[in-house]
Amino acid sequence: MNIAMIDDNMLDADRLDKSYLDRGLYFGDGVYEVLRSYNGKLFVLDEHLERFKNSLAGIEISGVDVNEIRGRVRKAFDAAKIPDAKIYFHVTRGSALREHNPQLNIKPNFFLTVSDVGDSSKSKTKGISVSTYPDLRWKKCSIKSLNLLPNVLAKMDAAKKGCDEAILVDEQGLITEGSSSAFFACINGSIHTAPTTANILPSITRKYIIKAAGLLGIPVAEKSITPQQAKNADELFLGVTTKDIVPVVKFDDSIISNARPGPITKKLISEFIKFTQ
Amino acid sequence: MNIAMIDDNMLDADRLDKSYLDRGLYFGDGVYEVLRSYNGKLFVLDEHLERFKNSLAGIEISGVDVNEIRGRVRKAFDAAKIPDAKIYFHVTRGSALREHNPQLNIKPNFFLTVSDVGDSSKSKTKGISVSTYPDLRWKKCSIKSLNLLPNVLAKMDAAKKGCDEAILVDEQGLITEGSSSAFFACINGSIHTAPTTANILPSITRKYIIKAAGLLGIPVAEKSITPQQAKNADELFLGVTTKDIVPVVKFDDSIISNARPGPITKKLISEFIKFTQ
Repeated sequence: MNIAMIDDNMLDADRLDKSYLDRGLYFGDGVYEVLRSYNGKLFVLDEHLERFKNSLAGIEISGVDVNEIRGRVRKAFDAAKIPDAKIYFHVTRGSALREHNPQLNIKPNFFLTVSDVGDSSKSKTKGISVSTYPDLRWKKCSIKSLNLLPNVLAKMDAAKKGCDEAILVDEQGLITEGSSSAFFACINGSIHTAPTTANILPSITRKYIIKAAGLLGIPVAEKSITPQQAKNADELFLGVTTKDIVPVVKFDDSIISNARPGPITKKLISEFIKFTQ
Repeated sequence: MNIAMIDDNMLDADRLDKSYLDRGLYFGDGVYEVLRSYNGKLFVLDEHLERFKNSLAGIEISGVDVNEIRGRVRKAFDAAKIPDAKIYFHVTRGSALREHNPQLNIKPNFFLTVSDVGDSSKSKTKGISVSTYPDLRWKKCSIKSLNLLPNVLAKMDAAKKGCDEAILVDEQGLITEGSSSAFFACINGSIHTAPTTANILPSITRKYIIKAAGLLGIPVAEKSITPQQAKNADELFLGVTTKDIVPVVKFDDSIISNARPGPITKKLISEFIKFTQ
């Protein structure tokens, strides 16, 4: 008889809930999105769904109706009645006995949560500290997949150092992005961020930051920089879906912008918030 | 109120089973092992537990008693009464609301299945076909983690090409290993396999294959080879926990060893089986 154990409990494997047979759990075989609302309004849901479609295609999960997901997001968001909500959802390839090669008749699993986005006003007004960590991730980080262990290890390392985020540095010595953020530096009046042609997630927040910079007449260079260049930058900040723009005031051992959010970062924060209204 | 959705079903997020909050699912934040029994006897359980301990340490999961896991493996194996069984188990960092940085009081989750290992006699007597695929994996493949999406994509590609396994080729153009196997080539009477110093899992089957080769007086070179060298090899085979040694008779478009398992491979199969008795 096929047997399963969940912690100390032994059971017939045929009686396992499908969540214990999820390929998301066995292989990280799934993709996800995180979006938020501002004051009761979902921010750029369609762009998140578009990226999600690309992620699904990137790992060849088919049979998922993105319009149906749009409906579910709206339904859950309406039910939660949380004005500033974080919405997380993922689709995995489905549940089945563990085999690398997926069974033909497998059906994707959908999962979603809506929760309060939390107060990020302190991060925004005081700024945060970041530390560098090697970019150990796989080679298709343009896909928003559930294979996030290297991101977790980076974030744990940052926490040990008293930092809020890990900035990933690749084998060429260039900054790619944060473990769960896009990374930006202000150098001589222009903004630098890695091009999305590199092994980088096409961040939606990044896109709106670039748009805000354009409206403010601040030039943007899509160009990777080194940790040393970051330390010497005039200002640093992150782009994060749940917090939009977060100033960085310490990078490894270097104090940035006199340990205060810089003027360009503050202007961008003010400009960005207009998109959300 | 925090809301969750599982497929079309909406519920209070507080009522979610812990399996839906598993960091294994959100991040692949866990490690696993697969071992087997031969004719009612578990094969090198202690070596699998030793490797598992290293994997746990590699991702800094603490508070797991490997002796307790040994007891669970034996208990489930005894209950299943399957003489030739495959035993899969994993430990994830635990269940909690999704945050990259793990909550301090989180408790690891254990999961195990015992099932029939299946009949691999056809693969062994006829040999299998393999195809190459880029090694897209993360940079710590010595850790047996649940981040296996690149392995899944490789295996799916192989299946599309009518092949049973994908052989991963790194950016230097060298073969690392199979998507779920170790890779071996017989060239001029000696066996070549990638050194485990590379980004490679320390395969236990590999270790016993090398031991078998030693007993047979066959020299082993721990040296990476290219796909071209593999095509020109006298024999190719894989090391897989559930099937020990599997001859490879086709590598991409090249027929190997006249499409039949070669003499060295056959000798190794006979020698390996002695370890399991």
